Amino acid sequence: MMMLLQQTTSVTKLSVFSKSDFCFKHCSSSSARLFFMDKHTNSSSSSSSLKQSFKQYQSPVLACHASTATNDTSLRKDYLPVHGVSEVIVGVLGGGQLGRMLCQAASEMAIKVMVLDPLVNCPASSIAYDHMVGSFDDSETVHEFAKRCAVLTVEIEHVDVATMEKLEQQGVDCQPKASTIRIIQDKYLQKVHFSRHGIPLPDFMKIDDLEGAKRAGDLFGYPLMFKSRRLAYDGCGNAVAKNEEELTSAVNGRMFYTEVQFLKKLVSHLGLTTLVFLYAIDEQQFTLGGFARGLYVEKWTPFVKELAVIVGRGRDNSISCYPVVETIHKENICHVVKAPAHVPWKIREHAIDIAHKAVSSLEGAGVFAVELFLTKDGQVLLNEVAPRTHNSGHHTIESCYTSQFEQHLRAVLGLPLGDPSMKTPAAIMYNLLGEDEGEPGFHLAHQLIGRALNIQGTAVHWYDKPEMRKQRKMGHITIVGSSVGIVEAQLKSMLKEEGSETQNAVSPCVGIIMGSDSDLRIMKDAAMILNMFGVPHEVRIVSAHRTPEMMFSYALSARDRGIQIIIAGAGGAAHLPG
Amino acid sequence: MMMLLQQTTSVTKLSVFSKSDFCFKHCSSSSARLFFMDKHTNSSSSSSSLKQSFKQYQSPVLACHASTATNDTSLRKDYLPVHGVSEVIVGVLGGGQLGRMLCQAASEMAIKVMVLDPLVNCPASSIAYDHMVGSFDDSETVHEFAKRCAVLTVEIEHVDVATMEKLEQQGVDCQPKASTIRIIQDKYLQKVHFSRHGIPLPDFMKIDDLEGAKRAGDLFGYPLMFKSRRLAYDGCGNAVAKNEEELTSAVNGRMFYTEVQFLKKLVSHLGLTTLVFLYAIDEQQFTLGGFARGLYVEKWTPFVKELAVIVGRGRDNSISCYPVVETIHKENICHVVKAPAHVPWKIREHAIDIAHKAVSSLEGAGVFAVELFLTKDGQVLLNEVAPRTHNSGHHTIESCYTSQFEQHLRAVLGLPLGDPSMKTPAAIMYNLLGEDEGEPGFHLAHQLIGRALNIQGTAVHWYDKPEMRKQRKMGHITIVGSSVGIVEAQLKSMLKEEGSETQNAVSPCVGIIMGSDSDLRIMKDAAMILNMFGVPHEVRIVSAHRTPEMMFSYALSARDRGIQIIIAGAGGAAHLPG
Repeated sequence: MMMLLQQTTSVTKLSVFSKSDFCFKHCSSSSARLFFMDKHTNSSSSSSSLKQSFKQYQSPVLACHASTATNDTSLRKDYLPVHGVSEVIVGVLGGGQLGRMLCQAASEMAIKVMVLDPLVNCPASSIAYDHMVGSFDDSETVHEFAKRCAVLTVEIEHVDVATMEKLEQQGVDCQPKASTIRIIQDKYLQKVHFSRHGIPLPDFMKIDDLEGAKRAGDLFGYPLMFKSRRLAYDGCGNAVAKNEEELTSAVNGRMFYTEVQFLKKLVSHLGLTTLVFLYAIDEQQFTLGGFARGLYVEKWTPFVKELAVIVGRGRDNSISCYPVVETIHKENICHVVKAPAHVPWKIREHAIDIAHKAVSSLEGAGVFAVELFLTKDGQVLLNEVAPRTHNSGHHTIESCYTSQFEQHLRAVLGLPLGDPSMKTPAAIMYNLLGEDEGEPGFHLAHQLIGRALNIQGTAVHWYDKPEMRKQRKMGHITIVGSSVGIVEAQLKSMLKEEGSETQNAVSPCVGIIMGSDSDLRIMKDAAMILNMFGVPHEVRIVSAHRTPEMMFSYALSARDRGIQIIIAGAGGAAHLPG
Repeated sequence: MMMLLQQTTSVTKLSVFSKSDFCFKHCSSSSARLFFMDKHTNSSSSSSSLKQSFKQYQSPVLACHASTATNDTSLRKDYLPVHGVSEVIVGVLGGGQLGRMLCQAASEMAIKVMVLDPLVNCPASSIAYDHMVGSFDDSETVHEFAKRCAVLTVEIEHVDVATMEKLEQQGVDCQPKASTIRIIQDKYLQKVHFSRHGIPLPDFMKIDDLEGAKRAGDLFGYPLMFKSRRLAYDGCGNAVAKNEEELTSAVNGRMFYTEVQFLKKLVSHLGLTTLVFLYAIDEQQFTLGGFARGLYVEKWTPFVKELAVIVGRGRDNSISCYPVVETIHKENICHVVKAPAHVPWKIREHAIDIAHKAVSSLEGAGVFAVELFLTKDGQVLLNEVAPRTHNSGHHTIESCYTSQFEQHLRAVLGLPLGDPSMKTPAAIMYNLLGEDEGEPGFHLAHQLIGRALNIQGTAVHWYDKPEMRKQRKMGHITIVGSSVGIVEAQLKSMLKEEGSETQNAVSPCVGIIMGSDSDLRIMKDAAMILNMFGVPHEVRIVSAHRTPEMMFSYALSARDRGIQIIIAGAGGAAHLPG
């Protein structure tokens, strides 16, 4: 590992490391620990109705009964008198910030939400009705969890769908349906599905071999976007071939020749001292890994804006769309959401129409997020759908009559859907992403929060994640106000101060860049070593699969800020212009 | 106890029972059980920062340190790096619905709130950071609790103020200050205090003996309002003398002669079958109990509206007032709150001005509720102040930029106060009061909630109280919308259906009435016996201290609805017209 530091000399050179040069800690799914944080049995014996109902719902028989009546709007009314809104225990696979906010919405109505998450201190743990500690990707654990709740839902789509299907066959009530999760998990299936339902998409094509890839190139032109069908998110699992010569390397994840050539050029062009290039990619997960893994290609879609629509769907198939928002991604992570989107009325109508159709075509109740591209020529194309609450809907907590989290609960419980319209004319959501590792990161976030609390109409959400990591979603800030102009100005003033303060901090002299936060587990080793030696540095996600200029502009800005060394993860360096 | 049932014959007769005829279960404060529901130590050992900070705050030394810096806006920053908004543990005396909603607001910002409440299943328990089970009126318990938190605040004013004062001397940080709680607890001191600060009040006068009472009668005229100085709320501890002859009986709590005469008249006038009159008053608590207990008189104030202003006060003495609301009480319990109040702008200004002055005169940070009378001639007079969040501010959760609960947290933590203005043009809050005991009550509430969920702009809050009792605050519903007219119409439509459904229910043939829900612990025995024998009945709070016609109109409406028997608690029967 010391080699890295030895590279920071004044001699311009380029070193390429492979991941095998480093030590990785992998989590084995077979070692998934399972225990149940029973919040209710540690209290003194009590005859509270809450505990009674809880015990009743622990029975797997009851859970099966409940699940057969998928269109029943008053679940289990024959079994138990209802105290309050609902007695049904909602089980959520995943206990991250989405689970946490679901629990918060549930708390107002005293709805009981249980979460399944491997982390003892996951964000949802402290306020969930109960937290089962275990993996939502482990069949046995999910089975055990399902026994304890009456409706099963998700806050993440990367769950064990085969187990969900088995559970459904056994009568467990899953909302949305496992069939929906299966479609969403496979991006190609998703495209085929939506295409069959007449939903406008970027052109796409399944490819099985190099010949297919070539045909696709001939048909769609270059650059050509390759995507892996599964476990792809935040730009991971994507690759771009800029010409026919790059097809093989793009598909097999061995695109490094081009990159190395480019990086060499960059080093000399910018006069950087050193560029340490970490081959930081776990092929299994983060490259396409060849045709055998399942690939498809998409025609390159230059967009002018990214839009999103949150859609609620009831057990009775009623559908309710939230206003169209504009999502602004920074280095592939959702950064800012503006509600409503500043686009012509016709575009909004069109977006709502597509979102409505897309969700209508899926099975099961809940909230769905429909991500869309708006092209230069005014086309609205579906990008992808998330079968759950979504970052683009966080603003609804403060700005809409019914938040996306309450809506999801209403939907899966068979309650009438709430009103998705905005009760304030405008809202802007800003993600609190980790700006540094550990305590310095917490300090920076705390400073920003301090400024936010002084701004009118601001609500601060903090997810209480025990660990701070760079680019990690730690919380968010929503500003609501009487016009888009006002909330934008307020956000600006909040961030302006931030900028001026950052300038007073020590300037970084090393930049660590990567394609997505999935590379962090490798790249953080580099950051750790720099920390050990007190070398000021910055970590940025610079993913270039859609805008190849991004890394170039990062490198330019880094030079202007006095950064002499850039350490690049392959994810960040991939797909750069030659 | 069977005697009661024997009274339900067809012979018109009136029986008066004294409380000594019944068995009461009193809670001895010396037997207060104390245990700590440690939510965090039952999990597997973990190095979460949450747990670490929790342990650090358990140190009494640290608690004392924190409390010396009462105007420090960044508490403890020297001790711990802050993760998120604040690391300070806020301790709340009381864990009812106000504590619960405080915890909900805290959860969004990941602020840690601990509650002290004797009930294992108190509303705040499930979402508090921790819940210490014990009495907030017990010195030893409060001491123990204070050691575990860095700021001590209240959700109820009937706490052990002497202990709070001792804790303050030891350096514990109480917000608001014990001095404030002491002033508020003694209604006479409260009046003197506000009067000295030039705040308009109904005329009042301390009385020590019968001579003083007579002088007050000569000065203020009749009816004359007697109030006990302590432990008075919801109309309890009030008595009215309609003329000089009633002075002694009013003061000594032996007003039953008049009542009995009146009730006899009522029985014959209405042709009721039987009126069972329970002498259901615990003299110690619910009557004035003579001059020795501390009394004062107030000039009778006929008002046209009751208004309220929620006021936030920061540790830096900054003050922020919420818009004036109108509170509508039904049988002495807050029933509906309309925001903003439909009164001329000048009246609103005047109300805000009084509220501002009143809170400025008190010590310590937090949210305060200022209750006001609006008289026929446009005067605004202070009724009383609550040193805490308040039922009249529940609407702020949905209708204001910063809710009263978040505001209270910001205030006691020394964070900047939030924006109290409304983000929606109008809001109406409707309390979900128990309409029946036990399961039938839950059923009725569930029906109403079901209708509420179908109404646009409605938010349902359910407090998750394990027991349903008549007139108990079980939850509330807030409707926000674009005009007062709209939200009123929506509330009406929600309740209209309720009316039509109630008609289908079994009509009660016995009415149980009382002066306030404090009488419930006695009156519920009557309800229990009727339940045992399957006699349909209704329980109503009919307190007459301000509107003596109330009981009369209740009796008339009861007769119209076929009720032949009324069981009256003395609290409900007191102060009726002769």
